[in-house]
Amino acid sequence: MPNIIIEGPPIKELDRKRKLAKEVTEAAAQGYGLPKEIIVVLIKENSPENVSVGGELILDRRQRKADK
Amino acid sequence: MPNIIIEGPPIKELDRKRKLAKEVTEAAAQGYGLPKEIIVVLIKENSPENVSVGGELILDRRQRKADK
Amino acid sequence: MPNIIIEGPPIKELDRKRKLAKEVTEAAAQGYGLPKEIIVVLIKENSPENVSVGGELILDRRQRKADK
Amino acid sequence: MPNIIIEGPPIKELDRKRKLAKEVTEAAAQGYGLPKEIIVVLIKENSPENVSVGGELILDRRQRKADK
Amino acid sequence: MPNIIIEGPPIKELDRKRKLAKEVTEAAAQGYGLPKEIIVVLIKENSPENVSVGGELILDRRQRKADK
Amino acid sequence: MPNIIIEGPPIKELDRKRKLAKEVTEAAAQGYGLPKEIIVVLIKENSPENVSVGGELILDRRQRKADK
Repeated sequence: MPNIIIEGPPIKELDRKRKLAKEVTEAAAQGYGLPKEIIVVLIKENSPENVSVGGELILDRRQRKADK
Repeated sequence: MPNIIIEGPPIKELDRKRKLAKEVTEAAAQGYGLPKEIIVVLIKENSPENVSVGGELILDRRQRKADK
Repeated sequence: MPNIIIEGPPIKELDRKRKLAKEVTEAAAQGYGLPKEIIVVLIKENSPENVSVGGELILDRRQRKADK
Repeated sequence: MPNIIIEGPPIKELDRKRKLAKEVTEAAAQGYGLPKEIIVVLIKENSPENVSVGGELILDRRQRKADK
Repeated sequence: MPNIIIEGPPIKELDRKRKLAKEVTEAAAQGYGLPKEIIVVLIKENSPENVSVGGELILDRRQRKADK
Repeated sequence: MPNIIIEGPPIKELDRKRKLAKEVTEAAAQGYGLPKEIIVVLIKENSPENVSVGGELILDRRQRKADK
């Protein structure tokens, strides 16, 4: 603790995951005033067919926008 | 917000995901009295070997029932 | 299973919670093609001082808009 | 999306919540390369009697250390 | 890690929380083959007006059964 | 309900998952004083490139320790 669960899109580059974990951890350490060693981050990668905004799957939204 | 996380079994057909996201979003929009555009749905697909009911994996329960 | 966690703002009226739980359950039952009896819904009520959008607490955003 | 759920101890000062939400959002925006406007943060405050590390409630661990 | 989130009804007695955290931690330690010191448990207490089964709030279900 | 979400590393052997689900369920049943039939366990397997401790991905930490 603190534990941070990040729900977002897939991240291809490993360096981007490194950066995300590092920066969120430092931000949380500062925000809580706690040592970063005890902060755990879980990155959850969600497929565009498993996320919807406004009732429309991200997959479909992208397709719709690409069709325009 | 609101954000809705649905933990369930895998869903093969994309149309079923579309329907699930759409209907849950509309239900939440009505329930909250909020516009559906701000409602995010995450569908989480869980393998039958990663879910248990009553301490028995779904995988094993299916096998047991099939064996009967 | 399926289990549905709804993260949203506080809901004062009990009838609104009834409606939210009922409608989301029916939507999920239809979406999955499963009986509604096995669907569990958890409503999580988040205080406006514990949610941020774009890095600004909902509490502050409301105040800022009220000040205009 | 991205949505970030932070599970941690209670935070008394509102300014600390402001800072936490702001800094985690900026870190995630940088990490993902996405605009911060679409990033939602939920701060979850857990009572020391509802969290355990190593099977011991935080409440008890604090008491044990205070007794030393 | 591992982190365990337990969503359940409110627990009044502190001793019951102690037991729950202790036993789940020991079970997870055995199940994973990991030392229990690194296992974190979060107990989430849900009000009966915030949980539904089959679309009916637990609050209402209890009342309905009490009325019989 | 109760529902238990276990976030941990990947588990290769199915028997280990069986044991984990069974033991956590029994522990929760004892802790809550509830029948184990109503307890649902979700095992979430997180890749070492999606988890960080202290801002360092588990993937990198393992590599760093292997390099020593």
